[in-house]
Amino acid sequence: MDPDSVAKAFVEHYYSLFDSNRAALANLYQEGSMLTFEGQKIQGSQNIVAKLTNLPFQQCQHSITTVDCQPSGPAGGMLVFVSGNLQLAGEQHALKFSQMFHLMPTPQGSFYVFNDIFRLNYA
Amino acid sequence: MDPDSVAKAFVEHYYSLFDSNRAALANLYQEGSMLTFEGQKIQGSQNIVAKLTNLPFQQCQHSITTVDCQPSGPAGGMLVFVSGNLQLAGEQHALKFSQMFHLMPTPQGSFYVFNDIFRLNYA
Repeated sequence: MDPDSVAKAFVEHYYSLFDSNRAALANLYQEGSMLTFEGQKIQGSQNIVAKLTNLPFQQCQHSITTVDCQPSGPAGGMLVFVSGNLQLAGEQHALKFSQMFHLMPTPQGSFYVFNDIFRLNYA
Repeated sequence: MDPDSVAKAFVEHYYSLFDSNRAALANLYQEGSMLTFEGQKIQGSQNIVAKLTNLPFQQCQHSITTVDCQPSGPAGGMLVFVSGNLQLAGEQHALKFSQMFHLMPTPQGSFYVFNDIFRLNYA
C-alpha cells in the first residue's frame, strides 16, 4: 500500500472508532504518545483516552474534507494532516477542525499515534 | 529556550519572511524537504520556493491565531501546528489557513523545515 492509502485508511479507522467507541482509541496510542487538544497537553495512552472520553458531548460524527500525508524521516513515520467537520448531536451547525497525526511503525507492521494535535477552526 | 518558545520564534520568522521576502524562505528548506500545498506535493528547497514565489498574489500578511508544538521523536525534531489568517492585498476578507511544519535540527544548532503541509480552511 502506498503512504496516501495508509493515511486514508488510518484516518477512516480513527474517526470511525472515535464516533462509535471512543475508549477503543486507547489501542492506537502508547505511553509516549502526546496529544495537544485545543492547546492542552496530555501524554500517555490512558490520559489521552480519558481526555477524549470525557469531552462534553456523547454522540458525534466526523466527516473528512482533506487528508495530506508525508513521510516524517528515516524512522518510517508518517505525518497525516486532516481537515474536516465535526457534527455534535443536537447542534445545528458542524464545527470545522484541523488535526495532525504523527504515526510511527510498530514491530507488528502497523502504526501507532506518537503525536496528535487537534484544533477547532473558529469562523 | 523551551520548545514552545522555539516554535513561536520560528513561526514569527517564517511568516515575516513570507510576507516581506518570500525568496529568502529558501534558507529554511533543504533538498529533502517536502511541501504539500493545497494537496500539491513539491520536494526540494528550490522547487518549494519556486512554488511559493509564484503564488498568484504579491503582497500578503499572515496573522497567527494559534501555535502548538510537540517533540517528534529521538532525532530532535519538532512538530509545529499553526492556525491563522492570510490577508491578500486588495481582498476584503482574510483567508483562514492551517499549516504544519516538521522542523529538524541542523548541525549548527538551528532548525530547517523537513515537512510542510498547508491548507486553506474554506468556510
